Amino acid sequence: MPTDTDVDHRISATDDAVNSSWNNDFEPILTVEPGDVVRAECRDATDGQLGPDATPADVAAVDVSRVHPLTGPIAVEGARPGDVLRVDLLEFEHEGWGYTAVLPGAAGLGLLADEFEEPAIHAWDLADDVARFVDGIEVPIDPFPGIVGVAPAEDGDHETLPPRSMGGNIDVKHLTAGSTLFLPVAVDGALFSVGDCHAAQGDGEVCGTGLEAPMTVTCRIDVESDRTIERPQFETDGPFTPTGRDERMFGTTGIDADPREAARGAVRAMIAHLRDERELTREQAYVLCSAAVDLKISEAVNGPNWVVSAYLPERIFPTDRRRPSE
Amino acid sequence: MPTDTDVDHRISATDDAVNSSWNNDFEPILTVEPGDVVRAECRDATDGQLGPDATPADVAAVDVSRVHPLTGPIAVEGARPGDVLRVDLLEFEHEGWGYTAVLPGAAGLGLLADEFEEPAIHAWDLADDVARFVDGIEVPIDPFPGIVGVAPAEDGDHETLPPRSMGGNIDVKHLTAGSTLFLPVAVDGALFSVGDCHAAQGDGEVCGTGLEAPMTVTCRIDVESDRTIERPQFETDGPFTPTGRDERMFGTTGIDADPREAARGAVRAMIAHLRDERELTREQAYVLCSAAVDLKISEAVNGPNWVVSAYLPERIFPTDRRRPSE
Repeated sequence: MPTDTDVDHRISATDDAVNSSWNNDFEPILTVEPGDVVRAECRDATDGQLGPDATPADVAAVDVSRVHPLTGPIAVEGARPGDVLRVDLLEFEHEGWGYTAVLPGAAGLGLLADEFEEPAIHAWDLADDVARFVDGIEVPIDPFPGIVGVAPAEDGDHETLPPRSMGGNIDVKHLTAGSTLFLPVAVDGALFSVGDCHAAQGDGEVCGTGLEAPMTVTCRIDVESDRTIERPQFETDGPFTPTGRDERMFGTTGIDADPREAARGAVRAMIAHLRDERELTREQAYVLCSAAVDLKISEAVNGPNWVVSAYLPERIFPTDRRRPSE
Repeated sequence: MPTDTDVDHRISATDDAVNSSWNNDFEPILTVEPGDVVRAECRDATDGQLGPDATPADVAAVDVSRVHPLTGPIAVEGARPGDVLRVDLLEFEHEGWGYTAVLPGAAGLGLLADEFEEPAIHAWDLADDVARFVDGIEVPIDPFPGIVGVAPAEDGDHETLPPRSMGGNIDVKHLTAGSTLFLPVAVDGALFSVGDCHAAQGDGEVCGTGLEAPMTVTCRIDVESDRTIERPQFETDGPFTPTGRDERMFGTTGIDADPREAARGAVRAMIAHLRDERELTREQAYVLCSAAVDLKISEAVNGPNWVVSAYLPERIFPTDRRRPSE
């Protein structure tokens, strides 16, 4: 973890340091040398429209044109198209709260958007570095940047929602502190931006949001000129389970020729399980899946059907935490 | 682990105990009481056509009509449609060898079948419960049944290749010893079968085969009549990494509106990494991905693009096993 003196550049998320689209014509807010450490404030995904007391009505009123304020772009001296930008993720500091929301209607993002037509939100208390849900359920906090990338080669304004070859909204939950991300540089100076931080997320981010939280990100930015990559790559130590070691998971399966339908089936079955066995409401179950349930592709080759499995760590429940075997 | 005296029924994989399709009209080879422990021999996926010395020419000559000999069906006293069959997986015994094969042509099963048109095979030595690849690479052995299921409600013969709601070729790699599988019973007596055992597999089984091995499976079979499920569910303790705790993974990403193409992109990038950084041939890399690389759905909601990530445990390489930090 870098000490304050190791940090070369500090960026506040002021209006002139934030953009809500990708554009290789944006003026850099800062130019850094390769190897510099940057500490950057990042706003939450809605640009402050949802706070710790937000309600479903606030969710319904969100102006989606303001979604994904990204801190940047940061130019990197000497970075050229074809280079690899190496980003060592060093530290994430949250502000003690976050939320997971279901945005319905035109902004309906979820994997089951057609089955969840009402807005919903859970505001999480993140004190003591544990994210508190209902009924004593606790999700571990493992922060990462939902959006991290560089400017695209194509001119013009590009939305922040879709991830692209240069990164962006990739939502790889294992880009935690201690991990390294490699990005393909597409324009001179790379033009790096970061934001949309999540304090937790299941692989899949199924309800459309992770555990969204304003955060300060510290990272070292470097350039590798001896190789080329097509899309983001990374190295990570996880965590791959809440405890960082093998523990009990409950799994559901979706089986379909369309991998999207297989994923939907697995999530639908997990929501039914959380309602029947853990007494959550349907909306709570969907939100919890987005924050804590991982989608794995069990098999992609047994034509015509794919199997996608959803994995729920049972340790997030208070009764399972008290098991004598732990 | 059950002692020999705990086992209620032993089944040899003789011709009259094996079927290569699903059919609810098959005569049970055995009827068990709920709670009985069964120890069942299972042939390898090709029904003995590939052995420890098999060559690519042998792979090209495989008669696919014999693929997936399953041991069973086993009738379970009192199981009725709508019940849940509970299968506690207790023990797997391999025979010291296995293989991972790329089957081209009409049987081309792999996620990149169109890019790998030649047959290939790696025969694995499984002595000391480690699976040996080339160049000192060692994949841990975590056996599970690739195919496990019950007879379908629909009459007639059904191929073993596609997984279905009643289970079958689900290839959930975490159905290891100590885990429990729940299957939806579709016909009287359930008619349980098992086979296609794998000593290891990555989530996705991308080249079309896992680490295929003849094995003896010991499991307890029980019936739950107080609930109904639509598709297989399970409980597992993993392992979720080779060491059962957090360790370094290298990841590649695929980004596409079609999740299948996203998965293909991630695997293609991992194969390139294994060629460039680990000096494997293209075929070796594809085979190793199938045995040891996990596909995760990083995000399924950032329309239009999905992100599928491929995770490679770096500890399988000899240089990484020697790292001082281990």
